[in-house]
Amino acid sequence: MTSPLAAKIAREYGTPALVIDMDRVERNIARVQKICDDAGVANRPHIKTHKSPFLAQLQIKVGAKGITCQKLGEAEVMAEGGIDDILISYNLIGDEKMARLGALLAKTNVTVAADNPVVIAGLPAAAAAAGRALPVVIECDTGRKRAGVETPAEVIALAGQILSAPGLSFAGLLMYPTETGWSEAQRFYDEALAGLRQLGLDPAIVSTGGSPNLKNVGKLKGATEHRPGTYIYNDRMQVAAGVATWDDCALHVYSTVVSHAAPDRGILDAGSKTLTADTGGLDGYGLILEHPEARIARFAEEHGFLDLTKSNTRPAVGDVVRIVPNHVCVVVNMSDEVVMVRGDEIVGILPVAARGKLR
Amino acid sequence: MTSPLAAKIAREYGTPALVIDMDRVERNIARVQKICDDAGVANRPHIKTHKSPFLAQLQIKVGAKGITCQKLGEAEVMAEGGIDDILISYNLIGDEKMARLGALLAKTNVTVAADNPVVIAGLPAAAAAAGRALPVVIECDTGRKRAGVETPAEVIALAGQILSAPGLSFAGLLMYPTETGWSEAQRFYDEALAGLRQLGLDPAIVSTGGSPNLKNVGKLKGATEHRPGTYIYNDRMQVAAGVATWDDCALHVYSTVVSHAAPDRGILDAGSKTLTADTGGLDGYGLILEHPEARIARFAEEHGFLDLTKSNTRPAVGDVVRIVPNHVCVVVNMSDEVVMVRGDEIVGILPVAARGKLR
Repeated sequence: MTSPLAAKIAREYGTPALVIDMDRVERNIARVQKICDDAGVANRPHIKTHKSPFLAQLQIKVGAKGITCQKLGEAEVMAEGGIDDILISYNLIGDEKMARLGALLAKTNVTVAADNPVVIAGLPAAAAAAGRALPVVIECDTGRKRAGVETPAEVIALAGQILSAPGLSFAGLLMYPTETGWSEAQRFYDEALAGLRQLGLDPAIVSTGGSPNLKNVGKLKGATEHRPGTYIYNDRMQVAAGVATWDDCALHVYSTVVSHAAPDRGILDAGSKTLTADTGGLDGYGLILEHPEARIARFAEEHGFLDLTKSNTRPAVGDVVRIVPNHVCVVVNMSDEVVMVRGDEIVGILPVAARGKLR
Repeated sequence: MTSPLAAKIAREYGTPALVIDMDRVERNIARVQKICDDAGVANRPHIKTHKSPFLAQLQIKVGAKGITCQKLGEAEVMAEGGIDDILISYNLIGDEKMARLGALLAKTNVTVAADNPVVIAGLPAAAAAAGRALPVVIECDTGRKRAGVETPAEVIALAGQILSAPGLSFAGLLMYPTETGWSEAQRFYDEALAGLRQLGLDPAIVSTGGSPNLKNVGKLKGATEHRPGTYIYNDRMQVAAGVATWDDCALHVYSTVVSHAAPDRGILDAGSKTLTADTGGLDGYGLILEHPEARIARFAEEHGFLDLTKSNTRPAVGDVVRIVPNHVCVVVNMSDEVVMVRGDEIVGILPVAARGKLR
């Protein structure tokens, strides 16, 4: 059971292939822009999902205020692609990073995050190299136990350090509340805001994050912008989180069944090098649209092990199937490019230009 | 506690960085070549670990007979890099693959694997395009339950199909015994060999695989070559398998501690986009040489979550640590390049030229 488009992709491009449906991409961009507009919160999409200046420009054209990057190398690619309002939501440390950040700041508007004094102490070198002020947001942890200060008192202390550092300006707060942690985030924010005002500061940016949090956008009183990423493509995790349907999933991995040694198992040509070992907390490594009862049970690097014991319909060797990945962002990072389609037509090949920017 | 080399890497190159110690690389290449030589079995290293024609050429210079690739795209890069004896140990299917395989076969010596009639039926198109015979090895499953025929009878049937297919030649058998499954492989091989001889065939290639199987090389009577991959770098899995020591681990991920919000936890700038979510069946995602009691407990894409509850020494923000990854092959695939060092000197930057070849 290979669809006409799948047959065309396999014949003209080959499998495994990452294929994006541009009609769905555009619909997802418009839908989430409207969610942000309706909530009165600016949209600053995280480009970690698509890693493409072309798609970032689409998001901005439809109303996004700017973009979010996690790595300096991603921000450099986006600036090269003409994006001029970039938030790097990550602690940057070291001479090499400061030299690059300075060069980036000299040519575009960039804001960085910090959650500790070591990071802030390093940033003035970048501002000096650029010859202009560097805005800094303070990352706050509100339950995720990742990066971010733990208390409003630390926010105030770091804001004081930013104020007295040459070339830095205090820009606001960066938050990434858990899906159920928005009242906790509100308490944190309210207390931090009171302290900031005593320093004579008002946060210009109060940023919340996450596509699973799209159902919460606007709940934090004082929030100015949101940073959703995955919504442009969606995936099995977003469907599980209740913020997307299968029809909103715009990226499919097309994969060929290459072996079928026993009736109750098969092998896909997409292994961990394509779909990644990231389960996103779900069972199996993706949903096969043509065989939803088939389980992608485990991986070698180039082999996806299919467990077909619960499948009434079983793919034959040579069949090309479509897979909705569990976590689409990490899958996109595995490929140098994605195939763009509309309906049953291939309309282009899009480089994943900011792929693999480890630094 | 940042070592002088780590400080240099961070300052001149930036973190996270994949760093290979060329003295160790050369030692590993020589050591495993000797294991194969002593066992009277040719060495055909799998390039999936390093994905570099430069390192493949080093392996050949020291005595390797040729190389193994898993993907056609890897083989194309290796042929471009001057390698002229390539085994693709994978079922290739479809017009797009056959066109590329034909072009590759026209310019270099390439052998492919097959484990089913659909694959074999497609291969003559490649041979015809190349204008020369295409040697085919039959993949046999001997306990791994991945690809490979399940019975010697299937070997005989597929060998017959190869014999009667235009442009194909029967080249032998491809096996990947489990570490404890070599007597099972011997029984399978002996029975297949008897049947092949009745067809007037003798396998020129009888290939076994795996770096963890280096302790078993030579155990299969009739084996002509072995396909170890990971031994060039080694990793935590190889140490756990008893085929390498920590001093044999030639690739380290250098990572900066960027956040330390609470005393018992920290954040590395290497997350799943660098170290991957592939645990290799081990606890934690890598060994930190400077803090072996610290556990890399979980990941976001750009954050490595350190659990320091059992650590007597705790890294400070800004420290650069060295990590031995669990599974080095998948980590190498995440990066466009690796930094080459000897002693405390950076001696070059090596592109991971065959990285990310999904097809």
